[in-house]
Amino acid sequence: MNKILPNIRESIVKSGLKDGMTISFHHHLRNGDYVLNMVMREIASLGIKNLTIQASALFDCHFELIEHIKSGVVSHIETNYMSGRIANAISHGILKDPVVFRSHGGRPAAIKSRRVHIDVAFLAAPASDKMGNSNGSLGKSACGSLGYAIPDSEYADKIIIITDTLFPYPLFPASIKESNVDFVVKVDAIGNPEGIVSGTTRITRDPISLKIAEYAANLIKYSGLLKDGFSFQTGAGGASLAVTKYLKSIMKELDVKGSFGLGGITGYLVDMLNEGYFEALQDVQCFDLLAVSSIMDNPRHVEISATEYASPLSKSRATSSLDVVVLGATQMDTDFNVNVHTDSSGIITGGSGGHSDTAEDSKLSIIVAPLFRARLPLIVDKVQCISTPGKHIDALVTQRGIAINPIRQDLIDTIKDAKLPIIPIEELKNLTEKYTGVPDRITLSKKCIAEVENRHGKIIDCIFAVE
Amino acid sequence: MNKILPNIRESIVKSGLKDGMTISFHHHLRNGDYVLNMVMREIASLGIKNLTIQASALFDCHFELIEHIKSGVVSHIETNYMSGRIANAISHGILKDPVVFRSHGGRPAAIKSRRVHIDVAFLAAPASDKMGNSNGSLGKSACGSLGYAIPDSEYADKIIIITDTLFPYPLFPASIKESNVDFVVKVDAIGNPEGIVSGTTRITRDPISLKIAEYAANLIKYSGLLKDGFSFQTGAGGASLAVTKYLKSIMKELDVKGSFGLGGITGYLVDMLNEGYFEALQDVQCFDLLAVSSIMDNPRHVEISATEYASPLSKSRATSSLDVVVLGATQMDTDFNVNVHTDSSGIITGGSGGHSDTAEDSKLSIIVAPLFRARLPLIVDKVQCISTPGKHIDALVTQRGIAINPIRQDLIDTIKDAKLPIIPIEELKNLTEKYTGVPDRITLSKKCIAEVENRHGKIIDCIFAVE
Repeated sequence: MNKILPNIRESIVKSGLKDGMTISFHHHLRNGDYVLNMVMREIASLGIKNLTIQASALFDCHFELIEHIKSGVVSHIETNYMSGRIANAISHGILKDPVVFRSHGGRPAAIKSRRVHIDVAFLAAPASDKMGNSNGSLGKSACGSLGYAIPDSEYADKIIIITDTLFPYPLFPASIKESNVDFVVKVDAIGNPEGIVSGTTRITRDPISLKIAEYAANLIKYSGLLKDGFSFQTGAGGASLAVTKYLKSIMKELDVKGSFGLGGITGYLVDMLNEGYFEALQDVQCFDLLAVSSIMDNPRHVEISATEYASPLSKSRATSSLDVVVLGATQMDTDFNVNVHTDSSGIITGGSGGHSDTAEDSKLSIIVAPLFRARLPLIVDKVQCISTPGKHIDALVTQRGIAINPIRQDLIDTIKDAKLPIIPIEELKNLTEKYTGVPDRITLSKKCIAEVENRHGKIIDCIFAVE
Repeated sequence: MNKILPNIRESIVKSGLKDGMTISFHHHLRNGDYVLNMVMREIASLGIKNLTIQASALFDCHFELIEHIKSGVVSHIETNYMSGRIANAISHGILKDPVVFRSHGGRPAAIKSRRVHIDVAFLAAPASDKMGNSNGSLGKSACGSLGYAIPDSEYADKIIIITDTLFPYPLFPASIKESNVDFVVKVDAIGNPEGIVSGTTRITRDPISLKIAEYAANLIKYSGLLKDGFSFQTGAGGASLAVTKYLKSIMKELDVKGSFGLGGITGYLVDMLNEGYFEALQDVQCFDLLAVSSIMDNPRHVEISATEYASPLSKSRATSSLDVVVLGATQMDTDFNVNVHTDSSGIITGGSGGHSDTAEDSKLSIIVAPLFRARLPLIVDKVQCISTPGKHIDALVTQRGIAINPIRQDLIDTIKDAKLPIIPIEELKNLTEKYTGVPDRITLSKKCIAEVENRHGKIIDCIFAVE
């Protein structure tokens, strides 16, 4: 039995890929990924048309998809996140049918329930053996966890591993199992290390972000959740990560031993693990080099699949045990609905990722965001796109105070003696508009270019083309 | 979300178990298992009838099943191995319908293909957290690998973890994932440590067995397979394990670096791993305490599921890369067919386990067995039961010489200058019969009490009731 094929082209031919099929990719190589482009060039040159791209996320480096859409190679895209040139082109209506946006938990659920059928998965693997046992921790293009690739490896009809570093059989640990793999292709490089993970994730020095982070950490302090066994997730951006810094001080002061940190993992959470603030990290994706080296060396830093992270079809998932999540927003409205899909001008710049999953499952979901960016207000009458419904958001923390969602009267009661700067969201909106004015409503076309499907499979909003 | 239930009875009720359903158990606690009996007592007292037991193996400790069969609680059994009182009772015709025997690779394939549907899996776990993340390495009833339980945890409708040691969430590593688990029940003890694994697996001192083992090791030496990258599996019994001892000397002499040891793992293979004879162990089941402590501490000692071990539906499996397997036999015939299901009197005393899987997939499958036991000859005209077809057996090694299956002319050519004591299997048979005489054919009834299904799902033989 020989699974090694000499090149990507042959693997495409051997996979039986035909017009109209669905192919999948993961995004663990982030903006450094070479694999999607390499595969798509070969598919294009083979004359295969009308494919659906089922990708856990797409970044600016995948801009070549624009040409493949124009030439009819790609006719449909489903993903959890999209940024850069491809997102911009789609916002301008380049695709006939709407993109389907899912969440990081919704995608594995759709795959498991067979609503999404993947014909061929092309899975970049920093390390593989000749039979396809693969992980993301070893090799020159190490990216750490392969959490988002695991559901594809379990359910796709054909699985092709594309690696740049072959290891002797049997490779361990095996995030992707040989039992699922059809072919293995070795290429020179699967990605650009500079784009795969950032060297170190730095905490912001912006005083406004730090103020927001401090408020958020204090909200957690008085929420009733910060006690032994505490669990926590935060994003890697702006104020989100800074919350971790303040939270650590508070945990030290109160001598709280947390149970686990979750999610996309940064060096900051790795430090907290090593210093005993958490017992374990559950890692679906590594954001920086410290996280990558930790997941290889530290058995308490555990890789989990997207299914184990956030799938609503799992009997429980890591997010089921999550106390607090700190998330961002590009827009919010006074019903606490959050937009993380588009910017203020309606252009797609992101997607839910794990936003809506963690907001729904955690005991306390906190949005941290400045009240305005480049004179554009955060809080609007109506968000361009509902990425996460307001009913799943518990608090908004800004530089001028903390708005608690009125449906969380229990939280309001809990923190009432804490001297936190609590303020109604409507007042935050009014405050902002004194500086920024009320922005003009932007005019969008009537053409739906993307549908937002919630994790349970229901379309909850539509994104329209910009004109 | 609370998965913890106060007792087994409540878990049965909550699982929705009804008359006629299928329930599953694994055999990692071997003859020390308490869980199957505890569950069956509660099921019986709830008045549920007509169940199918889908067990990876059954041992003498499960003799209480006899009463449950008589009372109508259990009407059908499917398993890979069966010994002791329950096997004896079934050999005497206690069940109306035949037992279905599968192999360790055939069982996960039947589960994956949905030919076998498990309604409720009751999975003993030496360590679990409150959400059902479970492993076999920790806790007072540690058994090591949970390889045979993993397919059940992935495919059963309801999964109930029964543990005697709860660990803080999140437990890692998680052989069974919380995403698959419905309920967790803590009991006082899931098994008797003395029955779960033997303290240390000792190598035989019987001179006949040692002679056989030495011949077998020499056959491997000259087979052309003993070179860097060599992989090896052996059973834990009699001469099989002694082969390892001689093989180790030869590997040292020839300076061969093996790639992996496979299968049910003993301390002897653990020593070879630690001394650098192998790069890794792939472990579907631990046979002794050394193996249990090694799988916990040594990342090169890797747990694999039954699917990854030997399932024919896997795109590749560990056995696909296996060079040599050394196996036992209770009977053989001159076509090299092997019986490991019944003893000479026709009573069920075992089953294929991984016998037929490894014989089929390995490059060289060697049977080691003495020519007679208690004056009963090994080689007979026709085996009572074909457990592994002769076409998958390459050699029989006995104290009087080595018989090579004539279909392996390539092997005969390879070893022709090696001065091994090669002898036709017919001559071995004649030699034996000079001592033992030709045994009388035993008379069996016409009632089929067990069907042997090969790993591909085909019934290849039938075992008849003894009278």
